[in-house]
Amino acid sequence: MIHESAIVSPKAEIGKNVKIGHFSVIHDGVNIGNNTIIEGYCELGCPTPLADNQSLTIGNDSHIRSHSLFYAGSSFKEKLITGHRVTVREKTHAGVNLQIGTLSDIQGDCQIGDYVRTHSNVHIGKHSQIGNFIWIYPYVVLTNDPHPPSETMLGVTIKDFAIIATMAVILPGITVNEHSLIGAHSLVKSDVLCGKVVAGNPAKEICDTTSIKLKDHPELSAYPWPKHFNRGYPDSVISRWRERFGEKII
Amino acid sequence: MIHESAIVSPKAEIGKNVKIGHFSVIHDGVNIGNNTIIEGYCELGCPTPLADNQSLTIGNDSHIRSHSLFYAGSSFKEKLITGHRVTVREKTHAGVNLQIGTLSDIQGDCQIGDYVRTHSNVHIGKHSQIGNFIWIYPYVVLTNDPHPPSETMLGVTIKDFAIIATMAVILPGITVNEHSLIGAHSLVKSDVLCGKVVAGNPAKEICDTTSIKLKDHPELSAYPWPKHFNRGYPDSVISRWRERFGEKII
Amino acid sequence: MIHESAIVSPKAEIGKNVKIGHFSVIHDGVNIGNNTIIEGYCELGCPTPLADNQSLTIGNDSHIRSHSLFYAGSSFKEKLITGHRVTVREKTHAGVNLQIGTLSDIQGDCQIGDYVRTHSNVHIGKHSQIGNFIWIYPYVVLTNDPHPPSETMLGVTIKDFAIIATMAVILPGITVNEHSLIGAHSLVKSDVLCGKVVAGNPAKEICDTTSIKLKDHPELSAYPWPKHFNRGYPDSVISRWRERFGEKII
Repeated sequence: MIHESAIVSPKAEIGKNVKIGHFSVIHDGVNIGNNTIIEGYCELGCPTPLADNQSLTIGNDSHIRSHSLFYAGSSFKEKLITGHRVTVREKTHAGVNLQIGTLSDIQGDCQIGDYVRTHSNVHIGKHSQIGNFIWIYPYVVLTNDPHPPSETMLGVTIKDFAIIATMAVILPGITVNEHSLIGAHSLVKSDVLCGKVVAGNPAKEICDTTSIKLKDHPELSAYPWPKHFNRGYPDSVISRWRERFGEKII
Repeated sequence: MIHESAIVSPKAEIGKNVKIGHFSVIHDGVNIGNNTIIEGYCELGCPTPLADNQSLTIGNDSHIRSHSLFYAGSSFKEKLITGHRVTVREKTHAGVNLQIGTLSDIQGDCQIGDYVRTHSNVHIGKHSQIGNFIWIYPYVVLTNDPHPPSETMLGVTIKDFAIIATMAVILPGITVNEHSLIGAHSLVKSDVLCGKVVAGNPAKEICDTTSIKLKDHPELSAYPWPKHFNRGYPDSVISRWRERFGEKII
Repeated sequence: MIHESAIVSPKAEIGKNVKIGHFSVIHDGVNIGNNTIIEGYCELGCPTPLADNQSLTIGNDSHIRSHSLFYAGSSFKEKLITGHRVTVREKTHAGVNLQIGTLSDIQGDCQIGDYVRTHSNVHIGKHSQIGNFIWIYPYVVLTNDPHPPSETMLGVTIKDFAIIATMAVILPGITVNEHSLIGAHSLVKSDVLCGKVVAGNPAKEICDTTSIKLKDHPELSAYPWPKHFNRGYPDSVISRWRERFGEKII
């Protein structure tokens, strides 16, 4: 299952039924879980002094697409799924089933919860704190320096079920609270309250998320989104959602 | 013409005078036209269930630059030209002489006409419909989900001769009509009328495109652009433009 | 120090103590200085007619990270540092210690001074003129065509010590003067005066940079930034800054 052109360190720990693609490189100490696919041109466990000799751990049942790059010193629970050309630096720790879109760049020292999805080309600055069940759309940037360049690092905090639409920029130290929605192309300069929609440059509060209706069912609210969308989540998660949010509406 | 480090499936159909660069991989069923150059580190025809067993077809006289990636199930007529690190997913079908800029990402299920140019780092969402002679500049995003995350997919439609400037975001289901111009850094929330300039966040109608003058010839309109710009188009196209738009003005 | 899978032209000039990583390719005529690290999957000196037979020169003590790509015809003085997946085209000439962030794309024909830093995913259009000690943050685009598509090329000029924050777009021909600061997500349509902060879409003058205070020391100005930030600069630079800007304030 390891392509003959791949270069795999004998000091890496490779699980059962792992596939490693053409021209990929696995460095010393990398720990890859069972049933994981690493596509071609990937490099896992790039050494860096900032990793403090910690290794890279990729959970079971993961799929890392081609041209992706992970530094040493980070860890991902099972079902990590990436697009292509993903870059993830050291000391980022993520929960179950993180999905990272093509070209996304996670800069290191981030905490990421369970079932987070980033779409393509998302930039997660150092020291970001990201909860669970969060969606981040293309070209979003989470910043961290309030007066660049400086030694002050104020990461962004994103709370559970929040949605950040395409090309929004979140300024340093901002908290985006639960179930809030940030409109496309917004510049977020102040904390976003729970369940609110903000949009614009600079972003202003527009309405409650519950007042956004489904295009195909204009009598039904589009949010909280777990009421109508559950593709890709396991039954255990969906049944918790049913208890919390009620029956699926469509 | 096939580099000794490239891996080419015996089930691929490779035309005459094709060059395949170092460390590139060509999967089963890929059909590459004559006189085409595939640079290094490219992967063509990545298998995916979403391709429904359709192959990848690249027309004659194409040039795919390094680190690019095409899934199975898409097709491109002659003179496809790409930058580096391009990603193109399944079931996208494009006409003649599509140019895709470095880092651009075409997400699949798109219809693209003839002589479309995207500059660097353009994101074309699934189900986009793109006409002919269109220009899309860096960091533009065409979206598709009106209330993310959802199962509703409303692709963007771009009509002939339209121009979308740098870092514009087009919201789901929007139509950008013929000969219109979208200003840099705009958020487009409603349909754009034929021949109009829109700009801002949110974008508003500013003027007719014909009222924008050439910097070096302030007495002449910069639009319709085929009146003064024809680099890279074949004589057959240019002569049709002359019939339609009149003589070249500079 | 040259990985056995790398392909290095015998016509390249490789300095002493140079490391070249797995699957990298070095073309004819490339000149790599001493003590330089080229990581894996890089391609240096890609031939192009636009390079006019000029070679690529990388100075001493440089570090080019994986998946990066440099065309022939450009030159970089010592201590060039890049992130991953960087693309640099022909006829760009840069001074000492340029740092180019992951995914950044320098389009060619640019002049870049000393100690310039770009963060991730910055797009530097053709014909940009960039001074010294400049900071450019993620997803910034420097444009060059005033009425796209056209043959008119008006590059952007950035002067010493300027700071361009995340996702700003600078329109063609604009000059960003010394010590100015462009806010995140701004669209810059007119020249920016020395020492001023501009922000918004379109960007407007907000205040003097000196009126922005340090978060942790609200009695102290954050600008000029060399008064409090000097990580990564050599003593010779720092002592010049001390003469010019006074003692370090924190």
